[in-house]
Amino acid sequence: MTKPSTAINAAGREVLTEINGEQHQPFLGVGKYKPKGRKASPPIRTVIDYPQSGDKRVASIKNALELCGIRDGMTISTHHHLRNGDFVGNMVFDAAAELGVKNLRWFPSASFPIHEPIIQHLKNGVVHHIEGSMNGPLGDYCSTGKMRGTAILRSHGGRYQAVQDGEVHIDIAVISAPTADPFGNANGVRGPAACGLLGFALADSQYADHVIVVTDNLEPFPCIPWQIQGNNVDYVVEVDSIGDPTKIVSGTTQITKSPDRLLIAELAVQFALEAGLVQNGFSFQAGAGGTSLAFAIFLTDVMKKNGIKARFVRGGSTQYMTKMLEEGLTDFILDGQTFDLEGVRSMRENSAHQDTSPFTSYNYHGKGNFASMIDIAILGATEVDVNFNANVVTHSDGKLLHGIGGWQNCLFGKCVILPIPLFRDRIPVIVDEVTTLCGPGELIDVIITERGIAINPIRTDLIESLKQSSLPLRTVEELKSEAEKICGGKPAKPKLGEKTVAAIKWVDGTVIDCVKQVDY
Amino acid sequence: MTKPSTAINAAGREVLTEINGEQHQPFLGVGKYKPKGRKASPPIRTVIDYPQSGDKRVASIKNALELCGIRDGMTISTHHHLRNGDFVGNMVFDAAAELGVKNLRWFPSASFPIHEPIIQHLKNGVVHHIEGSMNGPLGDYCSTGKMRGTAILRSHGGRYQAVQDGEVHIDIAVISAPTADPFGNANGVRGPAACGLLGFALADSQYADHVIVVTDNLEPFPCIPWQIQGNNVDYVVEVDSIGDPTKIVSGTTQITKSPDRLLIAELAVQFALEAGLVQNGFSFQAGAGGTSLAFAIFLTDVMKKNGIKARFVRGGSTQYMTKMLEEGLTDFILDGQTFDLEGVRSMRENSAHQDTSPFTSYNYHGKGNFASMIDIAILGATEVDVNFNANVVTHSDGKLLHGIGGWQNCLFGKCVILPIPLFRDRIPVIVDEVTTLCGPGELIDVIITERGIAINPIRTDLIESLKQSSLPLRTVEELKSEAEKICGGKPAKPKLGEKTVAAIKWVDGTVIDCVKQVDY
Repeated sequence: MTKPSTAINAAGREVLTEINGEQHQPFLGVGKYKPKGRKASPPIRTVIDYPQSGDKRVASIKNALELCGIRDGMTISTHHHLRNGDFVGNMVFDAAAELGVKNLRWFPSASFPIHEPIIQHLKNGVVHHIEGSMNGPLGDYCSTGKMRGTAILRSHGGRYQAVQDGEVHIDIAVISAPTADPFGNANGVRGPAACGLLGFALADSQYADHVIVVTDNLEPFPCIPWQIQGNNVDYVVEVDSIGDPTKIVSGTTQITKSPDRLLIAELAVQFALEAGLVQNGFSFQAGAGGTSLAFAIFLTDVMKKNGIKARFVRGGSTQYMTKMLEEGLTDFILDGQTFDLEGVRSMRENSAHQDTSPFTSYNYHGKGNFASMIDIAILGATEVDVNFNANVVTHSDGKLLHGIGGWQNCLFGKCVILPIPLFRDRIPVIVDEVTTLCGPGELIDVIITERGIAINPIRTDLIESLKQSSLPLRTVEELKSEAEKICGGKPAKPKLGEKTVAAIKWVDGTVIDCVKQVDY
Repeated sequence: MTKPSTAINAAGREVLTEINGEQHQPFLGVGKYKPKGRKASPPIRTVIDYPQSGDKRVASIKNALELCGIRDGMTISTHHHLRNGDFVGNMVFDAAAELGVKNLRWFPSASFPIHEPIIQHLKNGVVHHIEGSMNGPLGDYCSTGKMRGTAILRSHGGRYQAVQDGEVHIDIAVISAPTADPFGNANGVRGPAACGLLGFALADSQYADHVIVVTDNLEPFPCIPWQIQGNNVDYVVEVDSIGDPTKIVSGTTQITKSPDRLLIAELAVQFALEAGLVQNGFSFQAGAGGTSLAFAIFLTDVMKKNGIKARFVRGGSTQYMTKMLEEGLTDFILDGQTFDLEGVRSMRENSAHQDTSPFTSYNYHGKGNFASMIDIAILGATEVDVNFNANVVTHSDGKLLHGIGGWQNCLFGKCVILPIPLFRDRIPVIVDEVTTLCGPGELIDVIITERGIAINPIRTDLIESLKQSSLPLRTVEELKSEAEKICGGKPAKPKLGEKTVAAIKWVDGTVIDCVKQVDY
């Protein structure tokens, strides 16, 4: 094997410059890479080639793939709004296998443990490699170097950017639709597999050469809201079930019970208050993770007590967010994915609960996006280093087990807070250098742990605001030392092989880091 | 002057093949022209070049045009949702004149009498020519051969198609927004100039190189619904007023009082009933014209009496449609433009009152559109000939005074009915040959006049259904003879000059006919 072409990027990381035979630009620094050229342009179609009745139904996924002209080496995309309940991803590659197609590139917005059967298709040659977040078994498989191609991981915004810019050309997009009509209009707000919205599939519907909608809940035209527009859809397939509702959304999301996490959330709220971030008309982003949820709940209490109303909150929505909306504590929810049934109901019923897409929220190659307008962004990390650089995709053992999600995109929020435990399973979270660089430290403003808060030294404004604070302010080095003292030293370096198994893209399509094979 | 290049198209019309220096395809017949190539692709932008705060406001339209790099010969687009109340169109070309720019192509979705001042800019060289429907004075000006370039008229769907296909490249789109936020998200449902929706500007926002939103009702981000997405917008301009509300929508639309028109509407309803078109789950399209409104109202009575419910009705919406929705006589309104304040209110309040765009409704170069799914389409015409060919743009004197609107697109409905008077001002409406061909007779199924109904002979199914009917069924020739008898002969041929002043596009971008200068 010849040595792959690499370069040292602006973050000092050695990254591939050629990935799966295509050239990629190394990271140049935040806000440095300026794209050229024009957006990708799908083929011009004509209504002559589509049924006048509007009925685009065909018998099966296999049938639809054939009609789309599936052949070796094509790129097939799916979305992950059905999360770990998704049945459609596996159906697609089973059908491709039956058709004898090989070397497909699977381009999911994310994959989950339920997609473990795809490993068989990676082994038997139906799938060449995966470009998309891999949560669980597929990430593990990739980590061990068994996948033939190199994985490419992108943020939600980066995935939209890559498709829009023509960096990834989707031959066939398959869209799992909780509700659809025979024309292909589709939404996620109704049906047995209701998931709220379908924003992750927007780019696919706009830019793919061929688009297949798969549903288990067909309605007569028009399916309203048409989150996916039938005018972009070629074929509609009815199946018995597109997913397992119990694994798509929770019945109800629940707050963490961990005293440490509750403490971190409380500290984060107190920090936000003292920094003056919680004002009438402010906005915040918080996901469905335990600490994020606790943050949102504690913040709500503070808002009520002080008579403060948000202009918008950014979801992943949960019952706690919908309650805020219904109690008048925010004008809007701008939602990227719903995490529980209350989120789905609220989106269905309330026009102030707005579904969004990575185009609107995160696309770095657009005329702005709203990530940079959010006052407080609460994010997680598997590791943070002393320069505030953070990792979200690999564990301390080097295994690639998580996706980037909207994490990189949210780093452009006005105040980015990482509420993280000082250690996990007695392994310190603050390290000398992150295993994988996903977010440059210059965009991360505050680390909040159960034993203290570190403000990024470049945020002199925040340091000034908190000068009189009684909060436990520390340097990041102090926090790191404390963790090492408790855990008995620095974490062991992961044992990594030579082979690069995955590239991590920055929001602008450049390569910010690469992931090496784990060495067993 | 050299003789222009022309060809005889499939409809037997002599049409220009070169218009304003560009090649255009003559009409090949309905469903015959197959487009090649890929869609237009706007430049890739980056958020680096836009304010992180999301605030894209600049001081004035003039300022915004400068920032967009306006220069001689560019194409500037506007939309016509503010109809005859629009102030923005004139502001744009006044600003361009101040900047000393020349030879612009104005690409409105339509222009109205309020835009008469543009004639000055046509005279002084700021505007080279207009491509878009011209209602009133501008049409008259064009008709007399005074415009330097040749006008091109397109249907709503044809305009979307032309932009999407790259046939018309918009350099700068100016979008009048009744409500907007500083990021450029915009809608028509609120504000002093509320017009309901902004669908005619969708293509402009998606495909133009530069997009300016002009508003008189700025809200904090996020402006929801975001019918126009700020992610496509470069600059936002606040002005005192974008339009005159009294000329944008009616207070309330009123039904015709003409006994002849009421009779025609009654006959049309009776025809639809006897032809079996009015069934549970059916759909119909009806505009805001007197006869169309009367048709909708009479049809509503019949539906109530027979317990029939529509799946959707297609607007231009009016108080009569919103009442149908609210009384449960239809599941949805699919609305292309709101004609009265009740329409605006309903769209704002009712999620079953769906705003649409020419992309969804009419684009012939999409993966289908819903025009062909509509059971009954009620349309007007200035002239119809004995082969059911129809004209909607010129009067019998040859003057180009109307736009095509969605008329051509609606011809793809399952049963297309033209309810027309037998004569207007003692001039017969049914002629030997239409002055301008806008719609091929094969797509027009029924002509309904106050003195009889003519079914297109190719619709043997309809003729069969109506075999036992007591309706006054006639041949089109019989209707024509009767009109000529009453009016004292055929209408005089218009006196036309040699110069071609306008080309009429078919829905697929081919040239179906041309309009000659009127001879004074």
